[in-house]
Amino acid sequence: MQIAIIGLGLIGGSIAKALKANTTHTVVGFDRDENVLLDALFLGAIDRIGSTTALREADVVYVCLYPEDAVAFVRENAERFKPRCIVTDVCGIKGGVCGRLAALAAENGFVYVGGHPMAGKERSGFEASEAGLFYNASYIFVPGDAPQDAVKTLAELAGAMGFGTIQYCTQQKHDRMIAYTSQVPHVLACAYVMSPRCDEHNGFSAGSYRDVSRVAKINAELWADLFLSNREELTDELSELIRNIESIRTAVEDGDREKILALLSAAREKKEKFG
Amino acid sequence: MQIAIIGLGLIGGSIAKALKANTTHTVVGFDRDENVLLDALFLGAIDRIGSTTALREADVVYVCLYPEDAVAFVRENAERFKPRCIVTDVCGIKGGVCGRLAALAAENGFVYVGGHPMAGKERSGFEASEAGLFYNASYIFVPGDAPQDAVKTLAELAGAMGFGTIQYCTQQKHDRMIAYTSQVPHVLACAYVMSPRCDEHNGFSAGSYRDVSRVAKINAELWADLFLSNREELTDELSELIRNIESIRTAVEDGDREKILALLSAAREKKEKFG
Repeated sequence: MQIAIIGLGLIGGSIAKALKANTTHTVVGFDRDENVLLDALFLGAIDRIGSTTALREADVVYVCLYPEDAVAFVRENAERFKPRCIVTDVCGIKGGVCGRLAALAAENGFVYVGGHPMAGKERSGFEASEAGLFYNASYIFVPGDAPQDAVKTLAELAGAMGFGTIQYCTQQKHDRMIAYTSQVPHVLACAYVMSPRCDEHNGFSAGSYRDVSRVAKINAELWADLFLSNREELTDELSELIRNIESIRTAVEDGDREKILALLSAAREKKEKFG
Repeated sequence: MQIAIIGLGLIGGSIAKALKANTTHTVVGFDRDENVLLDALFLGAIDRIGSTTALREADVVYVCLYPEDAVAFVRENAERFKPRCIVTDVCGIKGGVCGRLAALAAENGFVYVGGHPMAGKERSGFEASEAGLFYNASYIFVPGDAPQDAVKTLAELAGAMGFGTIQYCTQQKHDRMIAYTSQVPHVLACAYVMSPRCDEHNGFSAGSYRDVSRVAKINAELWADLFLSNREELTDELSELIRNIESIRTAVEDGDREKILALLSAAREKKEKFG
């Protein structure tokens, strides 16, 4: 197959490298940065630098851009994709993306499957990308009305890239779960380092400080957009978290040892049960 | 030197193993569990099983028990320590421990130095202990009025065990910093897994879920006591955290992109500056 990758950042670059390392498909790269394209070519992350013709010939297109840019790209190129070309995005939020891209697909005769490869790191850009980024990670698909063979093709490619779990769900379920598993930890990390005690943590901290604060090294522009695209789910989940912190805080303030024990034991049981 | 270790759990067991692996001192082990003592002897983590006589001959005593048990042990054995014997604890909280142990030291002619080796893991007990647990970690000392040569002896032993940082401070500073670096992440992990979404996280989660929830596998009895021994500092720090989460939550609810960007960028700067 001819596989086009739009945007060779951390995710797009890693998809390109993983496909080149594990499949024999032809990988064509698109990026607004000429240097990145030449680097990707030089490093063998792509077979060719993309062109309008190459886009027309693509069997699968991974749009690896920020949400608004992804929608804009597909809109501008909607007429170029060949019939039944499979177009997929990698956006961390599906509301506001899936609906618009599915509509463009229906109007223009290509196939759209929402996707979210659940991987990342603190650094971004092509330089940070790596073929092994997805090892054992989860790839979430939001197929909507897409034909099953298209979804199967993408799932097989995900398997080849090293993903360990393939998850299928609706857009609503995706966004509710992501608010919890990914957005809340990012809010939390930022809120945590805002304490004046952060400035003096050195010498007083160990693994638990490091783990909670890790993702405070945040890509502010990207996450501001992701948060705003999932406003309701995220604010609900943050309220849930605040209530649960308040419960423990109140038990500590009241010196209620039995209550603290009950809350911590329940948490431990959940962590042991659900991992 | 003759070094006595009271309690061969995760910390005491690891201290024993680290001392045996890296020094030529004689390590004597005490534990209420006969099996643990025999295991420790068999594995070479200690040179001898402790006795009253061995305690009388000890030059350094590491009391590796929960806070209340540590104070009780030292009180019951206060007359047995030889003059200028160095007694130190490993409690995660210093208020309510240092004062009482320093008083017992002054009354009975031994030396007390508060200590907190900043290391841990999700499992506890001698089985989980390891000589390398302290590699590059921080050892906090609360010397109070202890003579400098005693503090120096403990700092040298800490260096031999593999600690990378030695930190000296007052009891008050220790407890304020620990509320932030260690207790808040434990409260947070427990509060985080209380969400109903935790039950379904599998397939939707990656590194940031794993990192925030890790310490929810909590030793409830131990941490309930640690929280209650540091009530004021911990509730203050939790209030600070809740306020900071609320700030981001409100900005998201209001759809205030500029405000979100400002908060996240400030967090990123702090994380980059302070690590």
